Amino acid sequence: MSGKFIVFEGVEGCGKTTQLQRSRQWLLKSGWLPTLQSKRFLKQLIATREPGGTDLGVGVRQLLLDPAKELIHDRAELLLYAADRAQHVESFLRPHLAEGAMILCDRYTDSTIAYQGYGRGLDFALIDQLNQMATNGLESDLTLWLDLDVERGLARTQKRGASDRIEQATLEFHQRVQQGFAHLAEKNPDRIVRIDADRSELEVAEQIEATLSQHLTRWYGGNFQ
Amino acid sequence: MSGKFIVFEGVEGCGKTTQLQRSRQWLLKSGWLPTLQSKRFLKQLIATREPGGTDLGVGVRQLLLDPAKELIHDRAELLLYAADRAQHVESFLRPHLAEGAMILCDRYTDSTIAYQGYGRGLDFALIDQLNQMATNGLESDLTLWLDLDVERGLARTQKRGASDRIEQATLEFHQRVQQGFAHLAEKNPDRIVRIDADRSELEVAEQIEATLSQHLTRWYGGNFQ
Repeated sequence: MSGKFIVFEGVEGCGKTTQLQRSRQWLLKSGWLPTLQSKRFLKQLIATREPGGTDLGVGVRQLLLDPAKELIHDRAELLLYAADRAQHVESFLRPHLAEGAMILCDRYTDSTIAYQGYGRGLDFALIDQLNQMATNGLESDLTLWLDLDVERGLARTQKRGASDRIEQATLEFHQRVQQGFAHLAEKNPDRIVRIDADRSELEVAEQIEATLSQHLTRWYGGNFQ
Repeated sequence: MSGKFIVFEGVEGCGKTTQLQRSRQWLLKSGWLPTLQSKRFLKQLIATREPGGTDLGVGVRQLLLDPAKELIHDRAELLLYAADRAQHVESFLRPHLAEGAMILCDRYTDSTIAYQGYGRGLDFALIDQLNQMATNGLESDLTLWLDLDVERGLARTQKRGASDRIEQATLEFHQRVQQGFAHLAEKNPDRIVRIDADRSELEVAEQIEATLSQHLTRWYGGNFQ
């Protein structure tokens, strides 16, 4: 058995955390997961996130997102995300994938390229080097990019109340991030699927379910439902 | 004015933290510092350390040294040290050096090469890349390597009581680290000065003071005392 690694990406407030949980429920209830388990194609379904998918990562996440902290220098921020990722890849993602888990992950390498590269303007070669160091080559099998207008996303996060250090960045920053996701999706059409996130929660979930069905069928054959 | 960056290096228990403080006192009391200040060659004297020389670094240091933490993967550890260093270099070392500070720093890039390269066996090219990313080229003006037998050093740290995650590593690990410092000193004779730390605290301090006097004279000329 070898698992599948599915990543949810997008700007703040795009709904990826909500949709990841909905996908998890759908995989369990639609019959896909029980069937794949009974055929011994998959062992379990796991949800995780970056930063903060490990004990160490929870500490790193607190350092990164705390709005009361001193100004974090761009390269220090990039290195902290990479440290979180290296720990997540080696102590969590790889062992679980090797045991046949399907992993749903909230953010991964594309977020670093979009936020630190397009958003902060850090050198793309430097980011690629660090993503390579952190992942040691582990790529997602499928990345769902929840494409939502930046201003609508930020309005949603403001409704939630207290915002973190990243959410407090300027609108222009978040617009560059959004452009970054758009470029990444263009450049990686096989790995990244665009989801129109400017719809109701239910409609977004239906698009994601259709995409997942299509990929599960491609990966495991069509006769499991 | 531009400052001077002096680093203290060595294995656990070699006495660098104690000697750094002694050097600080000596620089103040010997007349060197007041004279250099009055001639406007230097503005102030600062002591700092890695990891933990900034607010962010204090948080990173806690993550790195906490013995209760889950096993930290080698590459994650390396990236955390680099994040601490990037923040320290950009938000502390460079601004203070630019203002004419003399900085005494407990550990810097050589520790990363010795501990993560020689000790943990991580790829030296990877470490060099990360040191470069973290420092953006900032090297010490002088590094004092306090050379002490590993077993004597570890015996000292055990007397202190509760040991941290690094101090708990195996004797073989610490011996490889010591070899690392020895190789680094051989390869960088202009930057790294070996201090025989297997002597009394006072005798070690006298060696360091002689070395500092020699370098201060070279940097600023001999007519200031």
